Amino acid sequence: MSDINASIGFDKRMWRQDIRGSRAHAAMLVQAGVLTPEDEQAIAAGLTEIGAQIEAGQFPFDIALEDIHMNIEARLTDRIGDAGRRLHTGRSRNDQVATDFKLWVRDAIDGLYRQMTAAMQALVLRAAEHAGDPMPGFTHLQTAQPVTFGHHLMAYVEMLARDRGRLADCRKRLNESPLGAAALAGTSFPIDRHATAAALGFDRPTANSLDSVSDRDFALEFLSAAAICATHLSRLAEEIVIWCSGPFRFIRLSDAFTTGSSIMPQKRNPDAAELVRAKTGRITGSMVALLTVMKGLPLAYCKDMQEDKEPVFEAADALALSLAATEGMVRDLMPELSRMALAAGQSFATATDLADWLVRTLKLPFRQAHHVTGRLVALAESRDIDLAELDLAAMQSVEPGITEDVYNVLTVAASVASRTSHGGTAPANVAREAARWQEILDQEDAA
Amino acid sequence: MSDINASIGFDKRMWRQDIRGSRAHAAMLVQAGVLTPEDEQAIAAGLTEIGAQIEAGQFPFDIALEDIHMNIEARLTDRIGDAGRRLHTGRSRNDQVATDFKLWVRDAIDGLYRQMTAAMQALVLRAAEHAGDPMPGFTHLQTAQPVTFGHHLMAYVEMLARDRGRLADCRKRLNESPLGAAALAGTSFPIDRHATAAALGFDRPTANSLDSVSDRDFALEFLSAAAICATHLSRLAEEIVIWCSGPFRFIRLSDAFTTGSSIMPQKRNPDAAELVRAKTGRITGSMVALLTVMKGLPLAYCKDMQEDKEPVFEAADALALSLAATEGMVRDLMPELSRMALAAGQSFATATDLADWLVRTLKLPFRQAHHVTGRLVALAESRDIDLAELDLAAMQSVEPGITEDVYNVLTVAASVASRTSHGGTAPANVAREAARWQEILDQEDAA
Amino acid sequence: MSDINASIGFDKRMWRQDIRGSRAHAAMLVQAGVLTPEDEQAIAAGLTEIGAQIEAGQFPFDIALEDIHMNIEARLTDRIGDAGRRLHTGRSRNDQVATDFKLWVRDAIDGLYRQMTAAMQALVLRAAEHAGDPMPGFTHLQTAQPVTFGHHLMAYVEMLARDRGRLADCRKRLNESPLGAAALAGTSFPIDRHATAAALGFDRPTANSLDSVSDRDFALEFLSAAAICATHLSRLAEEIVIWCSGPFRFIRLSDAFTTGSSIMPQKRNPDAAELVRAKTGRITGSMVALLTVMKGLPLAYCKDMQEDKEPVFEAADALALSLAATEGMVRDLMPELSRMALAAGQSFATATDLADWLVRTLKLPFRQAHHVTGRLVALAESRDIDLAELDLAAMQSVEPGITEDVYNVLTVAASVASRTSHGGTAPANVAREAARWQEILDQEDAA
Amino acid sequence: MSDINASIGFDKRMWRQDIRGSRAHAAMLVQAGVLTPEDEQAIAAGLTEIGAQIEAGQFPFDIALEDIHMNIEARLTDRIGDAGRRLHTGRSRNDQVATDFKLWVRDAIDGLYRQMTAAMQALVLRAAEHAGDPMPGFTHLQTAQPVTFGHHLMAYVEMLARDRGRLADCRKRLNESPLGAAALAGTSFPIDRHATAAALGFDRPTANSLDSVSDRDFALEFLSAAAICATHLSRLAEEIVIWCSGPFRFIRLSDAFTTGSSIMPQKRNPDAAELVRAKTGRITGSMVALLTVMKGLPLAYCKDMQEDKEPVFEAADALALSLAATEGMVRDLMPELSRMALAAGQSFATATDLADWLVRTLKLPFRQAHHVTGRLVALAESRDIDLAELDLAAMQSVEPGITEDVYNVLTVAASVASRTSHGGTAPANVAREAARWQEILDQEDAA
Repeated sequence: MSDINASIGFDKRMWRQDIRGSRAHAAMLVQAGVLTPEDEQAIAAGLTEIGAQIEAGQFPFDIALEDIHMNIEARLTDRIGDAGRRLHTGRSRNDQVATDFKLWVRDAIDGLYRQMTAAMQALVLRAAEHAGDPMPGFTHLQTAQPVTFGHHLMAYVEMLARDRGRLADCRKRLNESPLGAAALAGTSFPIDRHATAAALGFDRPTANSLDSVSDRDFALEFLSAAAICATHLSRLAEEIVIWCSGPFRFIRLSDAFTTGSSIMPQKRNPDAAELVRAKTGRITGSMVALLTVMKGLPLAYCKDMQEDKEPVFEAADALALSLAATEGMVRDLMPELSRMALAAGQSFATATDLADWLVRTLKLPFRQAHHVTGRLVALAESRDIDLAELDLAAMQSVEPGITEDVYNVLTVAASVASRTSHGGTAPANVAREAARWQEILDQEDAA
Repeated sequence: MSDINASIGFDKRMWRQDIRGSRAHAAMLVQAGVLTPEDEQAIAAGLTEIGAQIEAGQFPFDIALEDIHMNIEARLTDRIGDAGRRLHTGRSRNDQVATDFKLWVRDAIDGLYRQMTAAMQALVLRAAEHAGDPMPGFTHLQTAQPVTFGHHLMAYVEMLARDRGRLADCRKRLNESPLGAAALAGTSFPIDRHATAAALGFDRPTANSLDSVSDRDFALEFLSAAAICATHLSRLAEEIVIWCSGPFRFIRLSDAFTTGSSIMPQKRNPDAAELVRAKTGRITGSMVALLTVMKGLPLAYCKDMQEDKEPVFEAADALALSLAATEGMVRDLMPELSRMALAAGQSFATATDLADWLVRTLKLPFRQAHHVTGRLVALAESRDIDLAELDLAAMQSVEPGITEDVYNVLTVAASVASRTSHGGTAPANVAREAARWQEILDQEDAA
Repeated sequence: MSDINASIGFDKRMWRQDIRGSRAHAAMLVQAGVLTPEDEQAIAAGLTEIGAQIEAGQFPFDIALEDIHMNIEARLTDRIGDAGRRLHTGRSRNDQVATDFKLWVRDAIDGLYRQMTAAMQALVLRAAEHAGDPMPGFTHLQTAQPVTFGHHLMAYVEMLARDRGRLADCRKRLNESPLGAAALAGTSFPIDRHATAAALGFDRPTANSLDSVSDRDFALEFLSAAAICATHLSRLAEEIVIWCSGPFRFIRLSDAFTTGSSIMPQKRNPDAAELVRAKTGRITGSMVALLTVMKGLPLAYCKDMQEDKEPVFEAADALALSLAATEGMVRDLMPELSRMALAAGQSFATATDLADWLVRTLKLPFRQAHHVTGRLVALAESRDIDLAELDLAAMQSVEPGITEDVYNVLTVAASVASRTSHGGTAPANVAREAARWQEILDQEDAA
Repeated sequence: MSDINASIGFDKRMWRQDIRGSRAHAAMLVQAGVLTPEDEQAIAAGLTEIGAQIEAGQFPFDIALEDIHMNIEARLTDRIGDAGRRLHTGRSRNDQVATDFKLWVRDAIDGLYRQMTAAMQALVLRAAEHAGDPMPGFTHLQTAQPVTFGHHLMAYVEMLARDRGRLADCRKRLNESPLGAAALAGTSFPIDRHATAAALGFDRPTANSLDSVSDRDFALEFLSAAAICATHLSRLAEEIVIWCSGPFRFIRLSDAFTTGSSIMPQKRNPDAAELVRAKTGRITGSMVALLTVMKGLPLAYCKDMQEDKEPVFEAADALALSLAATEGMVRDLMPELSRMALAAGQSFATATDLADWLVRTLKLPFRQAHHVTGRLVALAESRDIDLAELDLAAMQSVEPGITEDVYNVLTVAASVASRTSHGGTAPANVAREAARWQEILDQEDAA
């Protein structure tokens, strides 16, 4: 029974939060007249010592005391006597664990937010560097239209910006203090929940005691945001794996992010990218785990809710590793610009540009422009050359109105330069976007 | 192949959004000089007629045209000729489907937000009505301390308020227009994406064309918010099922929300609550489905993303049904107040109040107060009576300091009245909270 | 990088399997002429010593060596020189990890199978004991028809029997040895994969080397079987929680499976049952995690697959705990037979019996029998009595043909006794079923 | 309420199974003396007519009658009177829906099993054709060692063989008839459940009436097997997408499995493969949906279980489409053998062969063989040539013992030919495996 019941094996990770919460509660209880200033001093000293012991790895955790709260409380009471026990006035394990866990999730959000920012900074830097370097833009992993490598990287800046937004919203919504909700019904002691909320950096106390001890929304919302972010990282990771493959060779990664073999020193397995891609599974699985736990659970606290921590800890760890690896790979990757540029021009990637030119310049109706383009592509394909390699006579054999001017849109450089619409891949656009984001991130840093 | 490839079977549900998007795009193309005002009039008239046909169930959807966009475009072009085709200038199916789908999700959010508000209004109304009616507060489904029925209902108001917040955040974050991102790279046509964004009620155009057509965050975030809300509803549904059971009989539901049997006219199966509880599965499953689809998908558009719509449609439908059923059940339920009150006083539910009294009044140390309470509970249990039924002599046989005053805290009414801490279950608190929320919701209604 | 890359933190759990595999491989390599008998002796001695060190907690695991295979191999080579390295002939880390992990899963299956059997034995025992003790049979958690407590418990025997069947099928299907598939393509060394397969208890070697190192079906199938079993356990756990609640009080659990409180010595929170119910989340989440990892992974080995172990380890641990707790609770639970029997007769639970009697004895058409039953139930309900308490005159006022004989079907005892159809709840049936299963399980034990 | 309550919108898909079950039940009731032979004839005729109406799309489904069972029963009773109602003797909607749904799942299994077999046949055929055609074998999507294309395809035959095994096991386990379990407790009517079981092709009746109506294992196990199979198909689909990409161009697909564009006639988007890859999401989501529904559900039937059908129907449909598309693509794909062969020899793919040669021929210790190989690869890399292009002098500058013989292992052909270990990629092995499977599948066809 103690094997299934005890949570100290994992919830000891919340020791800092537990001590922080107890300090705030003790200070408030002095104001409420429940503790004396001397009590509080003893409590503070005791908790400081306990914290030091835990940090030094010397605290004797006891599985019989089940969880981190009881381990710390029992130790404190051993040391300072009944004041340790009086600290429990106006609170219970139910609101205490909700408070500790919220503080932990809030700390995790703050750390992951910083990591997302760092990954964005790395992406913006590389995007600025490669704002004008062409690569094939793919749809269906088929070469579709040329884009620039910087533009591609900036797509991930947008994704991470939304990921940060989700974390920030989650943080804001969770930032209400459950402390003092007590077991489930509130308390008759004259506690000041606004005071403890303020001391712990919460915006306000929660409004309903039953909800306070039954709510794990903050963990579910955190896991959802983490899962969506992990999905983004898995997409970049997939691209890195594909880009590193022999037939692509769009980028190289250094030994820091690959593993080799003593036999094949040239081999560079993109292990870090593969692991980032795979971590998505664990994070999605964690979200499913907690949603399953919470489904159909009557109010208020049920022991089922003890199964909330491991999925959150594991997802937070997995995401932290994934973000660190992603930032590192982005900083590290060495693009093979000439291979990318070459590939960008293959597969008739400027056929759309040709059709657009026919519509815009020759005022052909759409259907006819498409038809003409199709015939020209087929002609080039039959000669095993690209569109820009068809001479004017060949062009005019299909559509007599075509002039030399058409060659201005058939190169990769012309194609990307022409996409000047808002959000388009024109190098000037990309450079501007990178600069805009750089400024935003710099300002945040300064703040 | 057409069986697996065509999406018209489900994406026709976005016809309104598709027409809305095309109207906005056409109006912009006139400003850009791509279409004439006459073109636009023809397009508008054609789309209006198509919309009317679809609404009347008379539109001949063609699976060979694959999706809603092509079905409408082909029909429009049949009717008005090349102007219908020119409407496609500066956009592609990739940004068009992203726009349509975002508009659909935004509409779904607006509808579900209103339904959540209606459910909150129902809860607040019933909570005000029962602010002072006691029921057992459970932890572990064990009677723990008395609360009021109104307090219990208000816990769900807090949950739904967070659910609304998540939808509102999702709506705000998604509200950028992908229209004009074109296939993936932007376009060389002089389109005005700010204009179409504004016309469609978006806050701004998206900033990166690759991201614009590859992003399904808005669907994932919507599904996450829906799954968390469904989990809340499943909890209330579980409680309703338990409360309706023979041994509890805390509430009754009318025939509108139960089914019976011709043989057993007294039987009232809480089918609606069970279905609400079960719908959580479908919504969680939908989120897993889309996360799985998006995992490891390289940029930009991949056909995989066509699998985004069904999970979202189904989750939105399931949540709409669940919210409607929940609101209905809350308005409908008839509490058996006397049974609830009776149960609230059983199982020594005021033992905590007794211990608190010993600490507060007799200044007993915590450990001793707990010990005394335990002995008194054991004494009452041995006599098969409740704490308040122990006479003073019996009380004093355990702790001589106990006085008549103790009986003031041992009743259910005294217990709930004493929980006056912020968020506690004291009837005055609950009435105040209900009034506060009523005012918030009324003001929103007025706005 | 080493943080995300190394797996030694968790895969050291497979040390026994790794050593077992290496022993088998070494023995085969002697036959193949790659190793000398002296080599093999040195290898065997080295591995034995390493195993002893690990078991004693004295093995210096090195994160720089990444995984359990390299840790053991490096240590072995340190000790015995190049023979340790030659052990790697004809195998690679890819087939080695597949072999080790399969062996681990097979061992886990064997252990869990035994635990399921033990839980079945406990259920059969209690079912035999209570084959004839009535309780309400619920549908929709509404009292529907009386059943016996033994019959209810036997339903879980059927579920666990299917769970065992799934594990057995999974074991049979996984029981092919990947050892010798080498990196991905097989090997040119003259190894004998049939010999290593036989030595390790596999039925045969796998048939395709690419599949051998890419396959994690065995883990997915194991997780599926675990998730379905966990769902079964969650259902019994939910029932235990409900049965322990104050209004039900159908059973009591001893202190071994509940937790109390120093204040409320009478309180018995069914923590073990709640945790069993909750563990379902973790196990389902583990399955989702691995399915997500494997989705869309190209052949052959990808580093993503390193994320296979933690979900499986955690699911296996969670299921082992859940089965142990379930078996324990089943053996421990004390039914309150009189409360169950009383509840079984409430809510007109024998109305179906009455309708059946009208059809069978009075030959009433179904519609009329239902109509008459409905009227009699309504009559009893209006008098606040049960069906069996209506006197004959009252009965005949609704249907004159009713005779005294009807009372023979209106009692709980008569109702359950009458359900003699195959699989029905008649006590004799239940006793026979319990005896049948007892015999099956005894015979297995003997085998 | 009827919106959330009625299931006729989806469960009408089980009409064949419902009629089949009723026919079997009616025949048995004649033997049991409950129905007359005339009753049964009327029932049979009525059901036949109803079936014809449904098949013709002319049956007036009524949402007020909730489900398929009531729709058919009500219609039958309308037509033939009370005999239609008496058909319900000894059964209830609870066992009826379990029976119908099991029969539906069993039919789905049979169909999917056949489709898996067809996909295996297609793979075996193509594998035989390309048993000796080399391609790069990848690990981490890095070129590792050469394999043959036939060997790669045969890996999927192994996967599908396991998938078939899982379906077969599921079918065997589900093949017990719940019919006659009645509402939950069995029945007092003298029904013969063995007779109905036999008539419906079940192996036996279920053994416990409560379990019979509460069990949805068969659906969960089916969904698990479907999810694992979908994961396999997603892997091949991913490979097809990558193989079709411009830089790889290992295969081409015809227009039947790709979509193009009017502008770019050369473009072939592998839509079918992408959709197969994506369907995994839906199937995994369906499994999560039903596991979530069943978690913590007390016995016996709860309305939650009505949410079982849609996930199963959708998963079955998605898998059927995916298997059909996969089989089609395998038959259709045109490998670019020369590109594959060229890629197989790049990236020093035979370095392992060189190291093995040094160990085997020169008897170098492993460490030294690896070291020498590494130096030779580095030398070749520095000259931008492959290993086989290093002349003997260059070879001997690193290791003087190397002879001309080494070139016999450095070609792709030599490399694959050497992997003759059981399950290895040697062409003769692959041809033998393809023939073995061909024979197995042919024999099954004949049976």
